Amino acid sequence: MNYGIVLKVLGFILIVESVLMIPSYVISIYTNGVDKNAFLFTILVTFILGMVLAKRKVKDNSISAHDGLAIVALSWLVASLFGALPLYLPGSTKTYIDALFEIVSGFTTTGATILADVEVIPQGTLFWRSFTHWIGGMGILVFTLALLPALGVGGFQIYKAESPGPVAGKIAPRVRDTAKTLYKIYLVITIIEVILLLIGKMNLFDSLVYTFGTVGTGGFSTKNASVGYYDSTYIHLVIGFFMVFSGVNFSLYYLLFKGKVREFLGDEELRLYVVIIAISVLAIALNLFATSYDNFRLAMRDSFFQVSSVMTTTGYSTVDFDLWPSFSKGILLLLMFIGACAGSTAGGMKVIRILIMLKLIRREIGKIFHPRAVMPIKSNDKVMPNETIAGINSFIALYLLIFVISTLLVTLEGVDLESAASSVASALGNIGPALGFAGPTRNFVEYHQITKVLFTFLMLLGRLELFTIIALLAPRNWRKEV
Amino acid sequence: MNYGIVLKVLGFILIVESVLMIPSYVISIYTNGVDKNAFLFTILVTFILGMVLAKRKVKDNSISAHDGLAIVALSWLVASLFGALPLYLPGSTKTYIDALFEIVSGFTTTGATILADVEVIPQGTLFWRSFTHWIGGMGILVFTLALLPALGVGGFQIYKAESPGPVAGKIAPRVRDTAKTLYKIYLVITIIEVILLLIGKMNLFDSLVYTFGTVGTGGFSTKNASVGYYDSTYIHLVIGFFMVFSGVNFSLYYLLFKGKVREFLGDEELRLYVVIIAISVLAIALNLFATSYDNFRLAMRDSFFQVSSVMTTTGYSTVDFDLWPSFSKGILLLLMFIGACAGSTAGGMKVIRILIMLKLIRREIGKIFHPRAVMPIKSNDKVMPNETIAGINSFIALYLLIFVISTLLVTLEGVDLESAASSVASALGNIGPALGFAGPTRNFVEYHQITKVLFTFLMLLGRLELFTIIALLAPRNWRKEV
Repeated sequence: MNYGIVLKVLGFILIVESVLMIPSYVISIYTNGVDKNAFLFTILVTFILGMVLAKRKVKDNSISAHDGLAIVALSWLVASLFGALPLYLPGSTKTYIDALFEIVSGFTTTGATILADVEVIPQGTLFWRSFTHWIGGMGILVFTLALLPALGVGGFQIYKAESPGPVAGKIAPRVRDTAKTLYKIYLVITIIEVILLLIGKMNLFDSLVYTFGTVGTGGFSTKNASVGYYDSTYIHLVIGFFMVFSGVNFSLYYLLFKGKVREFLGDEELRLYVVIIAISVLAIALNLFATSYDNFRLAMRDSFFQVSSVMTTTGYSTVDFDLWPSFSKGILLLLMFIGACAGSTAGGMKVIRILIMLKLIRREIGKIFHPRAVMPIKSNDKVMPNETIAGINSFIALYLLIFVISTLLVTLEGVDLESAASSVASALGNIGPALGFAGPTRNFVEYHQITKVLFTFLMLLGRLELFTIIALLAPRNWRKEV
Repeated sequence: MNYGIVLKVLGFILIVESVLMIPSYVISIYTNGVDKNAFLFTILVTFILGMVLAKRKVKDNSISAHDGLAIVALSWLVASLFGALPLYLPGSTKTYIDALFEIVSGFTTTGATILADVEVIPQGTLFWRSFTHWIGGMGILVFTLALLPALGVGGFQIYKAESPGPVAGKIAPRVRDTAKTLYKIYLVITIIEVILLLIGKMNLFDSLVYTFGTVGTGGFSTKNASVGYYDSTYIHLVIGFFMVFSGVNFSLYYLLFKGKVREFLGDEELRLYVVIIAISVLAIALNLFATSYDNFRLAMRDSFFQVSSVMTTTGYSTVDFDLWPSFSKGILLLLMFIGACAGSTAGGMKVIRILIMLKLIRREIGKIFHPRAVMPIKSNDKVMPNETIAGINSFIALYLLIFVISTLLVTLEGVDLESAASSVASALGNIGPALGFAGPTRNFVEYHQITKVLFTFLMLLGRLELFTIIALLAPRNWRKEV
């Protein structure tokens, strides 16, 4: 491993992080929050350490696949370790582990919280916590790549390891330009949502916080009742639709921007994504109407908001869906696994992987009748390489394996299977609230400290799509041969 | 489709079934049961219809892949439709659907029951119900293939469609000889267990019934308390170990019989099977000892019996494991999915498929470090063809898809997610008792009639490993091209 370049990039990340904390610090000074000094201290320490590392002379500028993985995994870890300080130092959380859980939940856009009462937390800290959603959504490293001079050949390795989905889409030939374009699109969507929320009479601070949570598909709130605090169908719909928009592959917006409407609408993953949302919303609305709701329009509204929130792995809630009938809860649990589209800010397995699995099943049935036929798997009319398909299969298998083992570990605490399974699915899929024990009106604070460390690890695993971290932890001999 | 040959084989199946009912009829006469006339009527009708179909002149003797599927699926359906009559006619079950559920549960070696009190059911019926486990375990068609003259080229198609596992192992060059050898091994194991149970002071009738349930990995009992009725560690251990033995690929016993001990012990699937059992038994025993048991030996005994029962998809119980802590229940639920070895009488996904998935994950991690390396997947030192691996991936994906959709359908009845999920996993994996609503002390009778039809379908799907039935139900154009 090329330690020189790894440490240098970590230095850049720390500098960027210290700068990104300044707006929160300004809010803290302006509101005279108890977190003022914590921000100042963290910014200074992070900046100085960053400068020391970034200024190091490096002989060899090349980044191997292995270096790329290490850079991505370590960047996320280091950014979280320092980012947790403004929560821990002024006592917003009881322990440092709680603070780390909270900020990893922020960066990974999970949105699960251990804060029993968010309404007493200082404004600067609340802003910082939600701002991490915005940065983590598109990627800490993608952001750094967009700002800094080209990193040589390794830029794409890093971009690939941080971008969600089986295939990393490059919009521009140069990674730096791709990163810039993605952030521009991201910024435009962000600004539009803030304006729409302001029109809905939400104040500027909350508009910013809820927008960060929406476009980053994170889910942190400034209110204990999440979006349910706002008794406004307009606000529910704005946030609901922007969650759906944020679950779309951002490269597609680039196509749309270039006027390629037909390619945009014809994208197979997008189509399946919309179909799954439509069917789920309708099924849950009918189930709610048949059991507890008198008003079908209200059932549709709440169903749409919750489906959109869970499928895009945002995690906002307008009602306590843990009280919904099993059928509706079952659909939400399923959506937690599927997640939204690759190349979006959302988590989960991603719709494209589910699509490919469905095509594999269909091909297998066809093969029973034509055992010797060659039937390639296509996506958007392009033949998918066998390598990519094998990668998708392994990803899904590993995802389920990690899910099962983690669920068993969590049950050791004595919680019921539904709570354990949904909490793990929620952490691994970067969703936020789960069912039962960690349902929308309760939260992860009730879990044991060791279990919180497990969830913190799962959130990072999920955000970086398993293999980035698992590969670094794999036994040394796996790296040589199989 | 060659309807002539399909009907002819169905005729053979019916004749064989009518003959197989005779022992139960004899018991019924001997005990003067209320089911006497029902057996006589069913035997006559089945035999006559069978003769009519079997005597038909068929021009073309060839069996295509498609015909093979149709023969297997229809044979199982027809055998169940007629096999249910001795339960329905004398009123042992309230409705015909209940009787069908019960007998499909028998043939598929599921062992889930809708009988609230089995102790009032006539002896002849109890014997028939358990005997279906024995026939279904190794296969109705394999049995017919062993008895009847060769069916021409199609024999292997049928054998392949009925044998569980991704690859159908042929012991002898001719299918008929393979079938005969398998049934001989099966018979020897059966006789040994009956003798051991008789030594344990179980009466002959119960020894036969419990042996059918064990070696067929079915799970039907003559007592409401299942094996828990017998307060004898000896009996628990005999049944426990014979369940484990019945979950092993029967072709391996042939190797053992031929003196190839090293090949037997070196089989990768067998090794993983034993490792999973050992780890699960220990983990559950420690969990039980830490929570509710005072005696570690007793915890080990109960844990071993239940792990063996669930992993081999038998479904016998000695205690109410629904009351066990979540961690233990979670492990059992996981074992329901895994199942035992391919080529055994057990259900589930089969250990070999899990093994291949684990190897795929390992390869994927290796590929991160060596993107261009060619790394074939091997099983028992033989390279596995990509076709087989794709088939395994599709199988697992389809298994999970059917599991998820069916669970959602069952929750529409209003039962909780854990009950619905475990009941579906239990039916699809051919296990028997599930958790919660359909736990070991309750049963499937509480479900709605329509849900019972769904479970009946799932049991058949699981036993015939999905594709046999799904392919017949697939849209016509899938058969042409993908």
